[in-house]
Amino acid sequence: MNLPTIAHPVEALILAKLSPSVIERARQVRIMAFDVDGVLTDGKLWYGENGELMKCFNSLDGHGLRLMSESGITVALITGREGPILARRAAELGIAIVHQGIRDKSQAISALAQEHGCSLSEVGYMGDDIIDLSALQRVGFAASVPNAPAYISQVAHWTSSKPGGSGAVRECCDVILAAQGRLSVFFTQSAKLMSGVIQ
Amino acid sequence: MNLPTIAHPVEALILAKLSPSVIERARQVRIMAFDVDGVLTDGKLWYGENGELMKCFNSLDGHGLRLMSESGITVALITGREGPILARRAAELGIAIVHQGIRDKSQAISALAQEHGCSLSEVGYMGDDIIDLSALQRVGFAASVPNAPAYISQVAHWTSSKPGGSGAVRECCDVILAAQGRLSVFFTQSAKLMSGVIQ
Amino acid sequence: MNLPTIAHPVEALILAKLSPSVIERARQVRIMAFDVDGVLTDGKLWYGENGELMKCFNSLDGHGLRLMSESGITVALITGREGPILARRAAELGIAIVHQGIRDKSQAISALAQEHGCSLSEVGYMGDDIIDLSALQRVGFAASVPNAPAYISQVAHWTSSKPGGSGAVRECCDVILAAQGRLSVFFTQSAKLMSGVIQ
Amino acid sequence: MNLPTIAHPVEALILAKLSPSVIERARQVRIMAFDVDGVLTDGKLWYGENGELMKCFNSLDGHGLRLMSESGITVALITGREGPILARRAAELGIAIVHQGIRDKSQAISALAQEHGCSLSEVGYMGDDIIDLSALQRVGFAASVPNAPAYISQVAHWTSSKPGGSGAVRECCDVILAAQGRLSVFFTQSAKLMSGVIQ
Repeated sequence: MNLPTIAHPVEALILAKLSPSVIERARQVRIMAFDVDGVLTDGKLWYGENGELMKCFNSLDGHGLRLMSESGITVALITGREGPILARRAAELGIAIVHQGIRDKSQAISALAQEHGCSLSEVGYMGDDIIDLSALQRVGFAASVPNAPAYISQVAHWTSSKPGGSGAVRECCDVILAAQGRLSVFFTQSAKLMSGVIQ
Repeated sequence: MNLPTIAHPVEALILAKLSPSVIERARQVRIMAFDVDGVLTDGKLWYGENGELMKCFNSLDGHGLRLMSESGITVALITGREGPILARRAAELGIAIVHQGIRDKSQAISALAQEHGCSLSEVGYMGDDIIDLSALQRVGFAASVPNAPAYISQVAHWTSSKPGGSGAVRECCDVILAAQGRLSVFFTQSAKLMSGVIQ
Repeated sequence: MNLPTIAHPVEALILAKLSPSVIERARQVRIMAFDVDGVLTDGKLWYGENGELMKCFNSLDGHGLRLMSESGITVALITGREGPILARRAAELGIAIVHQGIRDKSQAISALAQEHGCSLSEVGYMGDDIIDLSALQRVGFAASVPNAPAYISQVAHWTSSKPGGSGAVRECCDVILAAQGRLSVFFTQSAKLMSGVIQ
Repeated sequence: MNLPTIAHPVEALILAKLSPSVIERARQVRIMAFDVDGVLTDGKLWYGENGELMKCFNSLDGHGLRLMSESGITVALITGREGPILARRAAELGIAIVHQGIRDKSQAISALAQEHGCSLSEVGYMGDDIIDLSALQRVGFAASVPNAPAYISQVAHWTSSKPGGSGAVRECCDVILAAQGRLSVFFTQSAKLMSGVIQ
């Protein structure tokens, strides 16, 4: 990977809040996997009398996941629950790798790394509960959320400031993209687009 | 526009929190455009298995948008997403200008200004993400929300204290109406109405 | 009304946070009217493509309104919006007075007072927006919520600490019941019930 | 019960925030009963025109209740309201004891203790309102939530830091499991699982 040595101001703003160790870990991520409930959502489960009615995602997270994919980073969703709603949202975001009903997340992460020819140090995972522990303990970049129990988030290398479902995933995407010098290009594109329109 | 030189106490309360530069920018707004997800909503996307089920708006925002229209300021909604729900809410609020599926918001803002014979300094825009950047950088009054990534909201001239979907749009409307001396009339009307009923 | 002169500890806990003037106003309330959106709810409006899908009420508020009714205080709901959902919830709570589609809330409050042979000093109203102003300025006990614009809540005699839809109405009920010495009876009943079961 | 005398670090983290008296009470719990609205949910009631549409539970709470059951502690849900939604969620979590439409919670708690051959000091209850008072005053471990009125939560032996519906029940489960030395086993299992996969 060709990484810029001097950060763009937007990336510097993000990196300034991170330790060198976290930046180095985020810099190596080639596959980023996310738990769903409590991470991509606020953990709330909406039930009607026939079971789960809906899930609540976040538009900031959606944009972040798209920026990751456009930057060539593989995005995966790995969840213990099952249902058609997540597949619908993932399809809209163009996320092809969606593993549902997974009991052993560590094994799922290993398989993912192998399929993509990555070492575990090039894999990131963001989770919030005991079922996520083994995966968090194996990956190069382990991320968590402030709504997780403290005994989970303390295992992570990095914890978002926004809670799950309110932009935590976007924050995680921004950290990885900034560490890899891949965020500023979207600002430059935006500026070019603007110039194109003005001139 | 005839603007009062001495502010009504209600307007003074709002203006006291603003810099002279922000007041001057808000004073010139003749068209105010808003992004939808994250601004008019809290950015949450409610999905069932067939896609987006609903959107969550705010009654304070609705009243603010009505006060803007009644004051002669043109209100527009510009969003990258598409769907029938927004049209339904906009119709209820009497907002005629609703542009959905917009990729280039800067271009949409320019077209809007031209159609209404306004300069860009007379246009305001409130947004929360990278897709909003080019529009925010062009308009006379650029507004954002505290739930936006910091690298977006720092581009804005003014950021609401309430998050999107919890009254951020109403705060923005109040700022514009107060800067233009157009908010107090609704208090006077309320007082007159009350007198009429009492006497 | 026979009011106790020495407060029960539970009532003292509530009254300790109130000024003598607020206690005196709350003590006189015989009819308490509430706005709906932003007061009995958090102001969020859930829209599908055919309009409002649902409203979100709070179980604490529901219990508070029941305690008010059981204590002989008349409860009314007065809202500018219209729809079948509010009627459904009000029926469940046994609230007979529900006025929807009301533009002039001050007039609605006056009519209510007259029908029940009360003076306006014996009426309370809780609201959060400009449409509520004239009513708030007329009643003996004007209450508001922290999510209201500051220029509205500053008109009120008392503002709840919890926001609308999260227990603001219950807080208001507790204030009135405590000021009237009518809250502790529910604790005594609970204690009696417990004794009955134990012995 | 065989209880470890030296706490696992994860359990120590939780126990460090508790008084010896709370730890002792939690240590004795063999049946833990929970109120639903405001405890297992955030107290919000979602109404359509035909009544309650859905309830919003939390994935962290669900995992906590499963850990309790797997640890041999009996879990019960006791609520004053009635409806099919709670039964659906309870079935998914494998909770067999669900008492709905209960007016006298104290009596329900006594019956529960008797059926399971427990003394009341071995029963816990988590509630948030006046209807829960008599039960809270009887059980060995009385728990409440920060969203309860202060005059309720002050009756409890312990109050969660997270509000109802946002992980309060999980916090309660963690306290009981940590006090009984039954939480760390899930970490050990997770570690073993990980080792098994790696080697």
